[in-house]
Amino acid sequence: MCELLAMSANVPTDIVFSFTGLVERGGKTGPHRDGWGITFYDGPGSRTFKDSDPSCHSEVASMLKSYPIKSKAVISHIRQANRGRISLENTHPFSRELWGRNWTFAHNGQLSDYKSVLVPQRFRPVGTTDSELAFCTLLDRLANHYGDTPPSRERAFRYLAKEGKTLQQLGVFNMLLSDGRYLLALCGNNLHWLTRRAPFGEAKLIDTEVVIDFKQETTPNDVVTVIATKPLTSNEQWQQMDAGSWILFRDGEVVAEGR
Amino acid sequence: MCELLAMSANVPTDIVFSFTGLVERGGKTGPHRDGWGITFYDGPGSRTFKDSDPSCHSEVASMLKSYPIKSKAVISHIRQANRGRISLENTHPFSRELWGRNWTFAHNGQLSDYKSVLVPQRFRPVGTTDSELAFCTLLDRLANHYGDTPPSRERAFRYLAKEGKTLQQLGVFNMLLSDGRYLLALCGNNLHWLTRRAPFGEAKLIDTEVVIDFKQETTPNDVVTVIATKPLTSNEQWQQMDAGSWILFRDGEVVAEGR
Repeated sequence: MCELLAMSANVPTDIVFSFTGLVERGGKTGPHRDGWGITFYDGPGSRTFKDSDPSCHSEVASMLKSYPIKSKAVISHIRQANRGRISLENTHPFSRELWGRNWTFAHNGQLSDYKSVLVPQRFRPVGTTDSELAFCTLLDRLANHYGDTPPSRERAFRYLAKEGKTLQQLGVFNMLLSDGRYLLALCGNNLHWLTRRAPFGEAKLIDTEVVIDFKQETTPNDVVTVIATKPLTSNEQWQQMDAGSWILFRDGEVVAEGR
Repeated sequence: MCELLAMSANVPTDIVFSFTGLVERGGKTGPHRDGWGITFYDGPGSRTFKDSDPSCHSEVASMLKSYPIKSKAVISHIRQANRGRISLENTHPFSRELWGRNWTFAHNGQLSDYKSVLVPQRFRPVGTTDSELAFCTLLDRLANHYGDTPPSRERAFRYLAKEGKTLQQLGVFNMLLSDGRYLLALCGNNLHWLTRRAPFGEAKLIDTEVVIDFKQETTPNDVVTVIATKPLTSNEQWQQMDAGSWILFRDGEVVAEGR
């Protein structure tokens, strides 16, 4: 299995605090040693840092812990390989362009008997994970369904949530998917989230001795939602998502949900 | 204008030495302050580090100068913006997936009157550069020409060289394009290259006081080709490409060329 992390915010915000907790689980407090990655959006542009080394020893992860990149939408993943060998091409997040937008995807779980069901044509996996194959299939279905006339972004994500749920018949499928503006969280069996907004307080990481006072880091109008496989802090109220439910976030706020 | 850098090698090789010279031109010894990027392949997988800050001041570039990532195919670019504002989405290299392979592209030059000629459908630009539009157009033509039956990799690159040459009617078009195995260099007006092989010697960067003794860094069978807009070292024999010519490299060796 793997662990997921994402952020949706109404102002460019750095994710150093949460990422610092997550990377500990990549070989130190957790067994997810088989690579890690993180995608930051900046407007329509995005950049992904990834490594097939354990995040707790990665030079690139160290740099990111000390260099705050601000973003309104972030997706991150640490991997414990099941389908597909340990390699760069099998490291999440995955990304593809459709309709002139960058789509980014990460998955936690494992699918079975999927090879005859997941047969994408236009978008094809570069690696050998069930995850990338699922992502390619979802984008294939989206492209086929709407053709060259993209729907509203919200409608596209509602369609992706519905199609994502069909993949849950194949096994455990927790996913994060973003186009840089919206962020979709679909829960298979394990996803938690919280929204930080004024009045901001202190937060303590579970996985390493770091405390942050968000009052010092924010302005009163900031709204920042963090989504993670398991809660990252010990003193905040994380909400557990129900199996089969999904939430669509924009600018840190819930804009749609379903099950 | 911009500057290009690429490497093709028969063994995973780091490009720290050449990259160290290039990033000096990103705001210090050269005016290319408007972002930079570098793509490293590792088998079929690839990762791109990019930044819209000047490379000479970039934290990410600093990390890459001290952390040798080994690769058989690398493409890098430092930008001096002409078409498209300074932003992450306008920062090279660009990448897209076709036929389950990652394709990576960088461009130096400037096109004119291209909007009615470059109208890709399947691959669409995320940013607003003529470069990304040209790349999307090339991949579109490749996908349309061969459909779902990819040709041999060499044939695909020969096709891309031919189509790339048609874009030279629109302006200055120096390009680098790779799928991780092959590397195509197409010269519009300015590209240089050299191949390092045994007996290896010393090399001195032009842009900063760095000397390397490749004898210490290599084995006798290594073959490493470096391609750059302008020579990066002062004491080696760089070959200048002719305008309109192209060279296809694999494992550091020339496998095809034309004009």
